[in-house]
Amino acid sequence: MGHYDALNNNSVKKYAFHNLNKHLHSFEEDFFYHLYLGKNQNDLKAMFGDVKFVCMGGTSKRMQKFAHYMKDLLGYRIPTGLTLNDITKLTDRYSMYKVGPILFANHGIGCPSLSILLNEIMKLLHYAGCEDLTFFRIGTCGGIGVEPGTVIFTEEAVDGLLRPEYRQYVLGKEKIRETQCDRELIKELLEISQEMKVGQKFNVVTGKTMCAHDFYEGQSRIDGVFCDYTQEEKLEFLKQCNEKGVVNMEMESLCFAGMLNFAKTRFGIVCVALLNRLENDQITVSNDMIMEFQERPFEIIGEYIRRRIVENEK
Amino acid sequence: MGHYDALNNNSVKKYAFHNLNKHLHSFEEDFFYHLYLGKNQNDLKAMFGDVKFVCMGGTSKRMQKFAHYMKDLLGYRIPTGLTLNDITKLTDRYSMYKVGPILFANHGIGCPSLSILLNEIMKLLHYAGCEDLTFFRIGTCGGIGVEPGTVIFTEEAVDGLLRPEYRQYVLGKEKIRETQCDRELIKELLEISQEMKVGQKFNVVTGKTMCAHDFYEGQSRIDGVFCDYTQEEKLEFLKQCNEKGVVNMEMESLCFAGMLNFAKTRFGIVCVALLNRLENDQITVSNDMIMEFQERPFEIIGEYIRRRIVENEK
Repeated sequence: MGHYDALNNNSVKKYAFHNLNKHLHSFEEDFFYHLYLGKNQNDLKAMFGDVKFVCMGGTSKRMQKFAHYMKDLLGYRIPTGLTLNDITKLTDRYSMYKVGPILFANHGIGCPSLSILLNEIMKLLHYAGCEDLTFFRIGTCGGIGVEPGTVIFTEEAVDGLLRPEYRQYVLGKEKIRETQCDRELIKELLEISQEMKVGQKFNVVTGKTMCAHDFYEGQSRIDGVFCDYTQEEKLEFLKQCNEKGVVNMEMESLCFAGMLNFAKTRFGIVCVALLNRLENDQITVSNDMIMEFQERPFEIIGEYIRRRIVENEK
Repeated sequence: MGHYDALNNNSVKKYAFHNLNKHLHSFEEDFFYHLYLGKNQNDLKAMFGDVKFVCMGGTSKRMQKFAHYMKDLLGYRIPTGLTLNDITKLTDRYSMYKVGPILFANHGIGCPSLSILLNEIMKLLHYAGCEDLTFFRIGTCGGIGVEPGTVIFTEEAVDGLLRPEYRQYVLGKEKIRETQCDRELIKELLEISQEMKVGQKFNVVTGKTMCAHDFYEGQSRIDGVFCDYTQEEKLEFLKQCNEKGVVNMEMESLCFAGMLNFAKTRFGIVCVALLNRLENDQITVSNDMIMEFQERPFEIIGEYIRRRIVENEK
């Protein structure tokens, strides 16, 4: 992919985001309402200028846990009397943590919630002068035809009509952004998975991810408050999706892929399946297993980030 | 409206929700994953059987604050040594509080996040045997042609193409639900507002609400990370919306109106404008003012609920 080659070619100027809003340079102040940070209110360059990796996931607790995981993996020592701080605790919309060059943030549920976080974090990192960024979404999902606990790398996000398009209404017109993911990055992550022999613990697969705008009817479940189709019709649809390459369903990949693809920024989407939707609608694995499953992407993404940091320090 | 008349007619059997999923009665267990409650795991009838009102809003802190507000307004005394408890604290997706017959929950940002909460709360209240329910969404929004601090009752939710339709993809097809709100309830709320003379403190208006799926481009802001239109084009679009009756923009009304309308359940959407989008994109009022603004809907909805409870106790 073009932007990936550019990032690997030292003769090409590094950059954070393409296709940026041309109005940005003209704002005296730009206050990120949902983060409670601002271009002038905070010294963004001093606070975030070193960021190279942004890790996002649904819940605050999981992102805090990943931040601690990375601190330990990188061998960073936090001085006695200090601890990881939620940088955006002045607002109660999102949480954000930082460990060295890695930013962690929870995006809540669904594309609208994620779109706000991405808008504000991308502007923040732009104003901070960051370059050569890599974004990861680390999530949970329903697998289709894979066993619970399988880790899935998204090749392409598709909507409920199987279109690889992130659609928004802007000024009364439909705007469409493409949702292909970075195949080179997936290849690297697969190589790391093999080297780490994660296959001895869990399966790793790649495929299309269906991004639904609802957990129940939107994901063809029969246990929502409304449902006018049968179990058989549900299974037929899920099997059709699977035959067309869809291996999982979640609720944020269209926005994540659509926005970062448009910005020509390197990104990956890595989810763990909590269930196989060809077998069940309800999540029946124990809470302990869910906790274990949720941390599986940490191992692969963590090792990728560790290697990039070590290379950079050489 | 039909369901409203039915609720006011004592000869008609009371009910919670229409058009319910017919599979529900066949499930041995129904576990609400995002609330960490279940049909059999918890005694839902004992816990929630008395609920008559459900109040939802974006953030957990605001809903907790409204719960305390209602406890004080109703003169409920919490025994020494006890306090309000987040009923869903075993999960970190949503928060839920209960004060007598009133349930409070935060829905996060956007229709997808709200749709999960509504699915799970509606099923929960159905299993608990609740009847004669009224739902409120209490939110913040961008006003169009109204001054900051104005309280707005939604008459109809419209999407970014001005259609009064909540659209979902279900089994590969588009499903459409209507988004009209309960005019009788709005009339009652307006009467209460007049009796309370809230007009001496702030304006109250009614109109159409545009539900966007993004805070930036989706709401025609020029301060998003991407923006390919001018300030003039933005203003032209906002003015067109205003001429067609749109008085505010937020991010949840389509789902709230679409689902509760389909269930034929009484509901209202009451938002306070944090800014006038014809004047600005950034929210520039002070944090203290935002806090004061956010509590304005509490007064009207709180008084409506108080009166209904007092009538019921007669």
